[in-house]
Amino acid sequence: MHFPPLATAVTLDLPDWLNDELADVPDEIPAVADRVALVNRLADRNWREGGGGPFAALVAERATGRIVSVGVNVVLASNISLGHAEVTAIGTAQARLGTWDLGGAGLPEHELVVNWRPCVQCYGAAMWSGITSLVLAGHGSECEDLTTFDEGPMIDTWVEAFEQRGISVTLDVAKPEAVRVFEAYRDAVAAGGAVVYNARQA
Amino acid sequence: MHFPPLATAVTLDLPDWLNDELADVPDEIPAVADRVALVNRLADRNWREGGGGPFAALVAERATGRIVSVGVNVVLASNISLGHAEVTAIGTAQARLGTWDLGGAGLPEHELVVNWRPCVQCYGAAMWSGITSLVLAGHGSECEDLTTFDEGPMIDTWVEAFEQRGISVTLDVAKPEAVRVFEAYRDAVAAGGAVVYNARQA
Repeated sequence: MHFPPLATAVTLDLPDWLNDELADVPDEIPAVADRVALVNRLADRNWREGGGGPFAALVAERATGRIVSVGVNVVLASNISLGHAEVTAIGTAQARLGTWDLGGAGLPEHELVVNWRPCVQCYGAAMWSGITSLVLAGHGSECEDLTTFDEGPMIDTWVEAFEQRGISVTLDVAKPEAVRVFEAYRDAVAAGGAVVYNARQA
Repeated sequence: MHFPPLATAVTLDLPDWLNDELADVPDEIPAVADRVALVNRLADRNWREGGGGPFAALVAERATGRIVSVGVNVVLASNISLGHAEVTAIGTAQARLGTWDLGGAGLPEHELVVNWRPCVQCYGAAMWSGITSLVLAGHGSECEDLTTFDEGPMIDTWVEAFEQRGISVTLDVAKPEAVRVFEAYRDAVAAGGAVVYNARQA
């Protein structure tokens, strides 16, 4: 066996439209509600641009709101199923800081902000990233009901399991706005204007 | 906000030593036991090379044993916590085939082979990848006991949840050999010759 034809790397690129979308966004967003509003806005634009599902995330310094990274779902654009919003936000934060541990010695505490509860893959990805807080615009069955994406089998005590590992969880900061993104996406899927890429339904 | 300093991409590169290690390995490995033996061998070399933990994986065409991709844990080499063996194997398989769905129309069935049960992140990653079978050298508490890596909170019915999504699971194909890799790693960690990078213990 040889490289190539074996592939030597996995690359997840963020879309170019983020340059325009973020141009007027300040480097620090002090209020948690404003950080959540940004991920809802990016989630809505992301599915409209066609690069992936209606999901976005960011990593911020918890105390100051300084934005370390921004991520969106890039499954369709990258052709890589791993490319969820939490993965691109965590990965680009770690790439920028040069560490696999966002909770490492000498670093400020880091927060992951997402527009909905992570799927089971991103549940683990968040757990191993070194963040010390997770902030969600919404959680509950609305995401699966409206988008038909499979979240996977999460344990019932998923919040407690985060907290046992030193990760605080803040729920439902802007749930109605998050649900509206999924409703618009659902309507577009029904009209043939968007793709549900997650094919392994239970 | 602008790119840079925001990072625009997440990249997980496989290590150069795989070129030598795979040079004499045939493109097709028809017997499942031989595919499992290869991931055990790569897992052992991986921690010794220092790029990540004692974990390796591959994606094969299920019927023929043709190897589509090989992956190892690259967390330390990449400085990205997401870089588990399943992630690099799935991602490079999808990169090679140009699709986010290894179970898509017109493709042969694909199998993921790993040297131990996936952690909760890679449980989800495998579920969304499009594989139709998962083959594990071993599973059980030995991995966490010997390596001290946290697997995360998996549901008790993790095998059934795979099977509900059309993914068959084969357990314990070469458990003693897989355990020996972890024992060697544990001894090296105790002697100061290897790093346990997973910092968020319960």
